[in-house]
Amino acid sequence: MRSFQRGALDLRPVILTPGVSRHAEGSAQVEFGHTRVLVTCSVEERVPPHLMGKGTGWVTAEYGMLPRATHTRSQREAAKGKQTGRTMEIQRLIGRSMRAAVNLSTLGPRTLTLDCDVIQADGGTRTASITGAYVALVLALRALQSKGTLSKMPSLTPLAAVSVGVVKGEVRVDLDYDEDSAADVDLNLVATGDGRIVEVQGTAEHQLFDRKALDAMLDGGMAAIQHLIVAQAKVLG
Amino acid sequence: MRSFQRGALDLRPVILTPGVSRHAEGSAQVEFGHTRVLVTCSVEERVPPHLMGKGTGWVTAEYGMLPRATHTRSQREAAKGKQTGRTMEIQRLIGRSMRAAVNLSTLGPRTLTLDCDVIQADGGTRTASITGAYVALVLALRALQSKGTLSKMPSLTPLAAVSVGVVKGEVRVDLDYDEDSAADVDLNLVATGDGRIVEVQGTAEHQLFDRKALDAMLDGGMAAIQHLIVAQAKVLG
Amino acid sequence: MRSFQRGALDLRPVILTPGVSRHAEGSAQVEFGHTRVLVTCSVEERVPPHLMGKGTGWVTAEYGMLPRATHTRSQREAAKGKQTGRTMEIQRLIGRSMRAAVNLSTLGPRTLTLDCDVIQADGGTRTASITGAYVALVLALRALQSKGTLSKMPSLTPLAAVSVGVVKGEVRVDLDYDEDSAADVDLNLVATGDGRIVEVQGTAEHQLFDRKALDAMLDGGMAAIQHLIVAQAKVLG
Amino acid sequence: MRSFQRGALDLRPVILTPGVSRHAEGSAQVEFGHTRVLVTCSVEERVPPHLMGKGTGWVTAEYGMLPRATHTRSQREAAKGKQTGRTMEIQRLIGRSMRAAVNLSTLGPRTLTLDCDVIQADGGTRTASITGAYVALVLALRALQSKGTLSKMPSLTPLAAVSVGVVKGEVRVDLDYDEDSAADVDLNLVATGDGRIVEVQGTAEHQLFDRKALDAMLDGGMAAIQHLIVAQAKVLG
Amino acid sequence: MRSFQRGALDLRPVILTPGVSRHAEGSAQVEFGHTRVLVTCSVEERVPPHLMGKGTGWVTAEYGMLPRATHTRSQREAAKGKQTGRTMEIQRLIGRSMRAAVNLSTLGPRTLTLDCDVIQADGGTRTASITGAYVALVLALRALQSKGTLSKMPSLTPLAAVSVGVVKGEVRVDLDYDEDSAADVDLNLVATGDGRIVEVQGTAEHQLFDRKALDAMLDGGMAAIQHLIVAQAKVLG
Amino acid sequence: MRSFQRGALDLRPVILTPGVSRHAEGSAQVEFGHTRVLVTCSVEERVPPHLMGKGTGWVTAEYGMLPRATHTRSQREAAKGKQTGRTMEIQRLIGRSMRAAVNLSTLGPRTLTLDCDVIQADGGTRTASITGAYVALVLALRALQSKGTLSKMPSLTPLAAVSVGVVKGEVRVDLDYDEDSAADVDLNLVATGDGRIVEVQGTAEHQLFDRKALDAMLDGGMAAIQHLIVAQAKVLG
Repeated sequence: MRSFQRGALDLRPVILTPGVSRHAEGSAQVEFGHTRVLVTCSVEERVPPHLMGKGTGWVTAEYGMLPRATHTRSQREAAKGKQTGRTMEIQRLIGRSMRAAVNLSTLGPRTLTLDCDVIQADGGTRTASITGAYVALVLALRALQSKGTLSKMPSLTPLAAVSVGVVKGEVRVDLDYDEDSAADVDLNLVATGDGRIVEVQGTAEHQLFDRKALDAMLDGGMAAIQHLIVAQAKVLG
Repeated sequence: MRSFQRGALDLRPVILTPGVSRHAEGSAQVEFGHTRVLVTCSVEERVPPHLMGKGTGWVTAEYGMLPRATHTRSQREAAKGKQTGRTMEIQRLIGRSMRAAVNLSTLGPRTLTLDCDVIQADGGTRTASITGAYVALVLALRALQSKGTLSKMPSLTPLAAVSVGVVKGEVRVDLDYDEDSAADVDLNLVATGDGRIVEVQGTAEHQLFDRKALDAMLDGGMAAIQHLIVAQAKVLG
Repeated sequence: MRSFQRGALDLRPVILTPGVSRHAEGSAQVEFGHTRVLVTCSVEERVPPHLMGKGTGWVTAEYGMLPRATHTRSQREAAKGKQTGRTMEIQRLIGRSMRAAVNLSTLGPRTLTLDCDVIQADGGTRTASITGAYVALVLALRALQSKGTLSKMPSLTPLAAVSVGVVKGEVRVDLDYDEDSAADVDLNLVATGDGRIVEVQGTAEHQLFDRKALDAMLDGGMAAIQHLIVAQAKVLG
Repeated sequence: MRSFQRGALDLRPVILTPGVSRHAEGSAQVEFGHTRVLVTCSVEERVPPHLMGKGTGWVTAEYGMLPRATHTRSQREAAKGKQTGRTMEIQRLIGRSMRAAVNLSTLGPRTLTLDCDVIQADGGTRTASITGAYVALVLALRALQSKGTLSKMPSLTPLAAVSVGVVKGEVRVDLDYDEDSAADVDLNLVATGDGRIVEVQGTAEHQLFDRKALDAMLDGGMAAIQHLIVAQAKVLG
Repeated sequence: MRSFQRGALDLRPVILTPGVSRHAEGSAQVEFGHTRVLVTCSVEERVPPHLMGKGTGWVTAEYGMLPRATHTRSQREAAKGKQTGRTMEIQRLIGRSMRAAVNLSTLGPRTLTLDCDVIQADGGTRTASITGAYVALVLALRALQSKGTLSKMPSLTPLAAVSVGVVKGEVRVDLDYDEDSAADVDLNLVATGDGRIVEVQGTAEHQLFDRKALDAMLDGGMAAIQHLIVAQAKVLG
Repeated sequence: MRSFQRGALDLRPVILTPGVSRHAEGSAQVEFGHTRVLVTCSVEERVPPHLMGKGTGWVTAEYGMLPRATHTRSQREAAKGKQTGRTMEIQRLIGRSMRAAVNLSTLGPRTLTLDCDVIQADGGTRTASITGAYVALVLALRALQSKGTLSKMPSLTPLAAVSVGVVKGEVRVDLDYDEDSAADVDLNLVATGDGRIVEVQGTAEHQLFDRKALDAMLDGGMAAIQHLIVAQAKVLG
């Protein structure tokens, strides 16, 4: 039986808590079952060098895990003096996804940074991060608009992310840590509510997969993303 | 008027929430007003090189702040590739304090690491960290005992910490961020319930201070620490 | 017109030159048009800590670009003191792909490292790297077998990689740098000759894509990979 | 018996040698018994970013130990690629103390850096550094005034520092390395000649301490600091 | 017998291949026997801070080795996070040599960077690098002139480099790896075609050497350099 | 006129002060005019990995400059997080020279580290370091012998170092900073008292040099080294 008594294509309980930070322009805590990520969206009135003078804005992301977010303690990246390749890969994915969610040219010359910090990990930290980051991003943009910094709300593309895998020959959605470790195939999907793809990353962990399996995973992932987008819309009002 | 309508020698509302992590052997969230720190205590069956073969254990601490725990975003230490001097100074203070709380020779050859991660900062993050770390430490030791890893509970010295300052000529306890920025003197006190001192660090920020002022600050700090130790005892049962 | 007068689904001229290093156990130079990558496969009689004593081997990869492999000079990563996120992401992809190509449990307690160094870049450096790395890997294994280090040849899964994109509304295979910069969608596919997928990574660069576009890209990529696998087989004899 | 046949509240022989560097604007060598620190004060016509355009100056400090200043060789921090937490903690303490010694707003937009390099260590390197740094600072300011860079001498607060500890139940001043290793309590005091405190940092090393012990340590430290300030005044003329 | 059936004072076969990079302003591959180095010369329209506003240009060099350029794999410097002392020493030598080859004041405010990357190592990588770098430098300057960036060709001092050693009591020129490992004395010479010295670095590896041996080595090195300069002139037309 | 009223081939006043460190097994302060270097020789009972189990010892060196050893303050390497190429080049030179001074196979499985720290710089810091390091090395070996750690004194090759240059057309020995900055040619020579060469490194700074100039520089350097070796012998007794 899967955790939370759920079926193969069901999500874990998803809880999105908006506005969890006193300081950040936008923030949300996102829980996918026992996975818990705190996302803040910080606005800074500057852009990276390659965008200076172009009038456009920028959206970027950073990702981290508290050392004991995991079953056994990992070394603190700040103490080690560098971020792992996994961390970099994930934060690049989150950043690209968020840039697809908003029209950068309508942001003005400012940078929005989405800090996704994993408080507790149980699989799916990157997909939970993206799902929560969209909420924090929208809240930050609304704050900019209500302060008058932005004269109108930028056009947005709601999007969310979920993991899908083949475990014991079965396509399953939103894997927890134990399933993830046992999966033959692991796929992360970032998509919109109307079925358009932002990112798809599928990896044969222990077994190669064919087009049919890919299609089944995409079907499962797309359906789950509808639910996530409904959940986002609910908290965003 | 001070935040939370409190008097000069009053603490902000203190909330200690034990057992906030599924994975860590011991954990607690500690809130001093709007300051919120997550502490986990991780147990590893190894000791640092200088203790190998001596039969004694070790207790250490690491400290971090989420990038947007503060009013404006700080650069992520993991991305910068090094910890600031402030971070190092604080984590050394927490580590020394925790080593004073437990008899290392009764731990067996294992290391307990207290990770104190500031989720939201509003002054007093180091004193909140120490106060919460004591709770996480005790919970981890109890877990070791109930698993049978430790045959009996090590002897403990309950301790807590508070900041004290001189603000506008008045001695105040548990400064929030605005008071801390305006303080002439800033003192951090780590002490036991029966008035013995573990650490005292007093700094003239904008004005030197005399023995009389030091005494007044110590009086205020010691009294506040009694309350913190009662709060710890309550959650530890 | 595309570079090299080719059609939308055609590869650039592919040249695989085996045995280009006097020192490495296996090596190959791979050219996809003007993209040129040197791959060496080094064998070391040790395994990473997490595999010690398990009898299994390990395959890993590192990726680098000479500073002037690109149109304008990039800073040397060794001088900067760290690898970029892009580099890490790519070398992790190559490593995973190569681990799918060979049964690790038949390697004995040794590590094979595939160093993929881009001598000249014109798009597709990661897919060229994977395609060449398979050749270098097989050559190194044959060398181990002919020296008697391996008693029999490990079972292998021939695989190769290609980039696919949507450029000006058209699905195109094996993008060069100019096309890559202009692509709306960018997909990297690692697959076997019989149509099984090792990795698929698709990214909406400027425009979201739907399942139909994904299918068309996968069709184009799979067909191209057949050609690459034939080319590999030719040089491997 | 204590080193140098001294009583519990006596300093080791203190030697302050001004003007030991040909290049630095101000300099001093300070010896507390066998502890020997070289301090230079360098003046640079720039301020840190957060002070730009404010007209005020800045005073900062750096601290280092030669690798064989100690009983056994320590790894060179420059070779290791980072400063230890202890180094950072000490240089922050020296910097804060020196900023208390001079009115920053009278320095003009320039930075004075106090480099404290321990040539030989035998306990009390941080307190010797502060005591010597005050001399180097004053000499540098006089040099600026005599060159006409400063039109008048900034107002100064003479200050010095000493360590105090409880060793074998006795309060002792200016601990050497052997005493420091054996001390139950270790306190560093930075203060002025008229008994005002700049910094007080007390640590229970092996035993907690009460207010009475703290008072006795402060009494001993304050008295010793008078002697140091007389010694500084003598070399400063 | 020496490799390539050559006499004690003979070079290995030297192959200089100009224009090996599509992107770099100038480039050359240089082979000294089995040693193979790829050199690119990149032109950037900026100068280091210390030359700003002086109207003069700058020439600098960087050196690297592919991890498996050597008999056994070396750790990738980019992965390790720092360049070795050997790398730094070599790239400083190449940089100084190239600055002697051209009049910096005639370059205009631009920087030419010579990237010397060792593809395969068999002794003499630094001397091959310098010999090839001169070719790449001249080609880059010609490219600048033909684009009109430089109105006339800067005056050049043709130079090349060779290693010389004492092996088994015999002075030998252009040592390969095996000879280099066995040499009692190792000398690197950078010089012009008319016998003027740019750099001479001689090291007693296992045996001290006298002036007579030094003279013999210089004689051998100077003669070999004539040949290298002829080879450079041939490819430069 | 040269500094210290000396002739073109004269050294600056040389002062060698042995035994300047309480802790190090051997130590010396060396002054060449205003250049002052502190050298300690530390003995550790371990060897680098490549020498383990071979019974031979190792000699190595590290070099550093205090930040204000120079005319203007340089950034502290420990704070910057890396050593410069110049530092690495110099410490490699010192290490090689010291390994030529003693028979490593007679040291037993231990490492001698020569730390050369420049207290004040005025040209010739690397040659002063080598000259002083020989003294510290011998003193450390004697200490090992008198403690009985070494049963007999290893055989030694006395050596020293000096800089030579061509300044305004004249060969000059032991350049101070001003001469060094103005020199057309700069040569560092490490040699024995009987005229055998350990290292020679000559660099054309602003002008190429011929064999005749090299010979004149070597003559001047060799003569000066005799004086340094006499000075070493005097302090070594």
